[in-house]
Amino acid sequence: MSSKTWQDLVAQKRLHQASCIPPAWVLPNPPPQDVLNVIGVPETCGLLSSKEIEITNAHVVDILQKLASGVWSAVEVTTAFAKRAVIAHQLVNCLTEIFIDRALERAAQLDKHFKETGKVVGPLHGLPISLKDQINIKGIESTMGYVSWIGREVTKNSVLADILEQAGAVLYVKTNIPQTLMWPETYNHIFGRTRNPHNRSLTSGGSSGGEGALIALKGSPIGVGSDIGGSIRIPSNFNGLYGLRPSFHRIPYAGCVNSLEGEDSVVSVLGPMAHSLDGIKAFMKTVAEAKPWLRDPVSVRKGWREEEYGLADHGGAGADGKLCFAILWDDEVVKPHPPVIRGLELARDALRAAGHKVIDWKPYKHAEIFRNVDAIWGAAEKEDYTLAASPAQEPLISSMLLSIDDPEGFKAQMALLGTSVAPPVFRERPDGVSAFALWQIHKERRVLREEYLEYWNATVGETGTGRPVDAILSPAAPYTAPPHGFNRNANYTMIWNNLDYTALIIPTGLTVDPSVDVKVPPHEFHNSADKANYELYNPEVFKGGPICIQLIGRTLEEEGVIAMGEIVDNAIKKKRAGSEKANTKL
Amino acid sequence: MSSKTWQDLVAQKRLHQASCIPPAWVLPNPPPQDVLNVIGVPETCGLLSSKEIEITNAHVVDILQKLASGVWSAVEVTTAFAKRAVIAHQLVNCLTEIFIDRALERAAQLDKHFKETGKVVGPLHGLPISLKDQINIKGIESTMGYVSWIGREVTKNSVLADILEQAGAVLYVKTNIPQTLMWPETYNHIFGRTRNPHNRSLTSGGSSGGEGALIALKGSPIGVGSDIGGSIRIPSNFNGLYGLRPSFHRIPYAGCVNSLEGEDSVVSVLGPMAHSLDGIKAFMKTVAEAKPWLRDPVSVRKGWREEEYGLADHGGAGADGKLCFAILWDDEVVKPHPPVIRGLELARDALRAAGHKVIDWKPYKHAEIFRNVDAIWGAAEKEDYTLAASPAQEPLISSMLLSIDDPEGFKAQMALLGTSVAPPVFRERPDGVSAFALWQIHKERRVLREEYLEYWNATVGETGTGRPVDAILSPAAPYTAPPHGFNRNANYTMIWNNLDYTALIIPTGLTVDPSVDVKVPPHEFHNSADKANYELYNPEVFKGGPICIQLIGRTLEEEGVIAMGEIVDNAIKKKRAGSEKANTKL
Repeated sequence: MSSKTWQDLVAQKRLHQASCIPPAWVLPNPPPQDVLNVIGVPETCGLLSSKEIEITNAHVVDILQKLASGVWSAVEVTTAFAKRAVIAHQLVNCLTEIFIDRALERAAQLDKHFKETGKVVGPLHGLPISLKDQINIKGIESTMGYVSWIGREVTKNSVLADILEQAGAVLYVKTNIPQTLMWPETYNHIFGRTRNPHNRSLTSGGSSGGEGALIALKGSPIGVGSDIGGSIRIPSNFNGLYGLRPSFHRIPYAGCVNSLEGEDSVVSVLGPMAHSLDGIKAFMKTVAEAKPWLRDPVSVRKGWREEEYGLADHGGAGADGKLCFAILWDDEVVKPHPPVIRGLELARDALRAAGHKVIDWKPYKHAEIFRNVDAIWGAAEKEDYTLAASPAQEPLISSMLLSIDDPEGFKAQMALLGTSVAPPVFRERPDGVSAFALWQIHKERRVLREEYLEYWNATVGETGTGRPVDAILSPAAPYTAPPHGFNRNANYTMIWNNLDYTALIIPTGLTVDPSVDVKVPPHEFHNSADKANYELYNPEVFKGGPICIQLIGRTLEEEGVIAMGEIVDNAIKKKRAGSEKANTKL
Repeated sequence: MSSKTWQDLVAQKRLHQASCIPPAWVLPNPPPQDVLNVIGVPETCGLLSSKEIEITNAHVVDILQKLASGVWSAVEVTTAFAKRAVIAHQLVNCLTEIFIDRALERAAQLDKHFKETGKVVGPLHGLPISLKDQINIKGIESTMGYVSWIGREVTKNSVLADILEQAGAVLYVKTNIPQTLMWPETYNHIFGRTRNPHNRSLTSGGSSGGEGALIALKGSPIGVGSDIGGSIRIPSNFNGLYGLRPSFHRIPYAGCVNSLEGEDSVVSVLGPMAHSLDGIKAFMKTVAEAKPWLRDPVSVRKGWREEEYGLADHGGAGADGKLCFAILWDDEVVKPHPPVIRGLELARDALRAAGHKVIDWKPYKHAEIFRNVDAIWGAAEKEDYTLAASPAQEPLISSMLLSIDDPEGFKAQMALLGTSVAPPVFRERPDGVSAFALWQIHKERRVLREEYLEYWNATVGETGTGRPVDAILSPAAPYTAPPHGFNRNANYTMIWNNLDYTALIIPTGLTVDPSVDVKVPPHEFHNSADKANYELYNPEVFKGGPICIQLIGRTLEEEGVIAMGEIVDNAIKKKRAGSEKANTKL
């Protein structure tokens, strides 16, 4: 055993990380910490050429087209994204592993192949893709934020890394996560905290918070996150991104590192995050068509189904195409803040303007479904985390509050929040239970899933389409990005994990505006968490946070949810364009 | 609480069962117990008309065609199968619930519909289907052999019963199972023991042993069994039937009763058993096309895929259609008896004669994969069974030996087996473990599954097709039907459950023939179970048992396995027809 302390190991690892940044890409004038909104910095900092800005701002399909037609080279595109990723990292601390030389070498090979054959190697030829830290790439560490995992050799690509590389993608950075992965924010002892680029006093969310912040700053066109209780959707929501939580086992997980391994019932899934919806589709289609079940025994044998993307189960594209959406306004666990409601109202009005029907979705046993999934993880999580952290004598983290790494920032934050707001208490983890007790929780879960399915099917009488509700619209959280350490309600995401429904985050393009999103009078509180959430809302504190909505479809309905997502997204964009035009007229 | 003993409750239930048999269908001259082979009795007993014999001997597709063209009525077909089922029951004790009046009423409604509209109600119009006891039918008890479950009201059809009825099937009997379902034979305190109609001194297998015996006697054209470790395939194997173990969650299980509920990792699946392969296909296609995922939240969203049935992933039907099969001759846990090897040799020769390639399949960690799944169930099985049995003070059964219900038969059996054979010891169940310990077993399982998949893929260099082995051929057990209580090696079935591979039993048409299947000299034993199995083999004891093989495909590859099953089945039939012709010439 080494005599180094865990702090020694961290210092060494951080130094190594810094050494991977090309000196020319170090920000000459980084904005001081009290500059909260840094979204515009990559384009104004002077490090990116106008072409690099053009490349990194483009949509995925455009980038792929320009690569496939030789307009842009893979080296150009990789350089642009790598540079912007490193800039992003200096602003919000979003990366873990940085391996740009390797990426540029790979990009050069792709360019050579293209030059020689005139052909792309696959549908993602030359596209840089960032990966959450836990997704193994041969030769790159996957510490997952555990000090004891520093130095562990990764001898093999994960199945997903293989599929992406074979499709032509260029891997270049891995992104930050919280210790254990089981936090909805992003902080660990090795890499520290990732902040929200829209407002650095707010959390980037988690556990795929590094991805969220990186993509928001356009340091990556597509990032891969993982989601066991919201870990793709929460950072997508807080950073204003598209993010898909696919169903269990649609995207291959084999060969990644993880928490709670062996917990087989409500499992983590990998999925894409992007700033354009076409990126989500390109990723899902590419992976499904690669037949992942031939490489990962748990992956579902179901390729990309174009007829499901054509909404064959929702009246079909050939029909008049009118869908019925139902909006969940309040899950009766924690009522959302005003900006979240404003986002849903925009979606409602936009969909109605586009001719769709929109009804209300009343919650069904959401608190029970939420408690049930918590009990499944709680059955043995303590042993799991302890086993991972203890070899390095690294302590388990029990709070995401700024007080743990930025006491000054914490004081300022609490002053802004006011005396009526108490910070969340530090987390205690439950002791484990017996296998038989766990089976009884699984059994309860099955009943809840059966009931929820019946409940959904029973909406057939209210839709006017002859079908049950086509998809549900819901908040992704009861708030937009909250201050660091205050993201304590994952009820709007965890429920869909437990039910295994496909769920997509869609940004509305709106952000929290204190002049519009004023605090409303208190409602009758559902419980103490609801009251605490009401009290937390302060428009000045939440200012600038993106407003997103969540679209929920059925299990293994990724194609249909993406297609319905396009409908919602287009309706919102059209509605907003119309409003802006109307405003301009005034 | 009632003051009745569990024995009182059993007596009452048995009386009720007997009262459900129409008096005219009671066998006038049942064969005495020492008549072992009763396969021919239904046709010779005098209760069935020649038309009823024709109907019950027909293949499923023929029956459906005659029903759909009005040649046979649903009432005629139902009457024929119900009568033959009741005859079968009197020979081998295969039924639990008998509800013929209800079935005939339903059949009459179907006939009325057909007469009025000229149309069938669905693809299974008028076809009687028998169900394993655990599959809930509204108004019919599902005791699953637990005395404490007698009298429990079943208020709702299971999803599968609904789908079958909506497709036009007629439900008429439920079939016998062992207490707990977790035995590979069939005996419980309520309904007693099911025997093998080919040789009543042998077991019918289990847990779907009632189905196996019933269908072997052609008392049902399609039966639905369940399989967590071989419970469809073992009785199919011992009774000479086709039986498919579909992958997890392909056939909806919602609304059934079960053992080990909440054990989510290696779960029981429902699947068809039949005496013709077209019955297996008709069942799978019908259920998949009914979109079970819209009614059962756990069912996979994957309809019947005709292109997979066309072997698109195996060179396609349009190619020259040459496949590569690999034969597992010995899993190095327990070596099979000579008749089992003879069955595999026939398959090998038949496939080679049909132009396919046949290579050997070397086992990969079969003992570990087998122990792993055993440990998963063992994590909490004791608590599960105890909870179900204890309300009626019913003891848990710890052996399937004849000594427990037929001491005289047991003595005779042991005399025939000889002094070198010791009966299996009574079973002790392990104490439960912690949820964390269970997760570690699940984790080990995932690694084994990944390794086995890689192992399969690595055969690509040996096949000559450019693909890895298309399917594996394997014994379904290390023996044909053994004496009651001696079925103690489920290693050849449980492994595929743990790996979640699609597996189909195919009868070769051969049966154990003491003049051919002579005892071979001892081999170097793998372990004590292997030695005990070698010693057990005695051609006279096993005489008449059907010889079957098992065909194994990949996860969720039901369509492909059925199609490859047709290829194997046709090759064997052709080969046997050729041999018989050749023999006749001599």
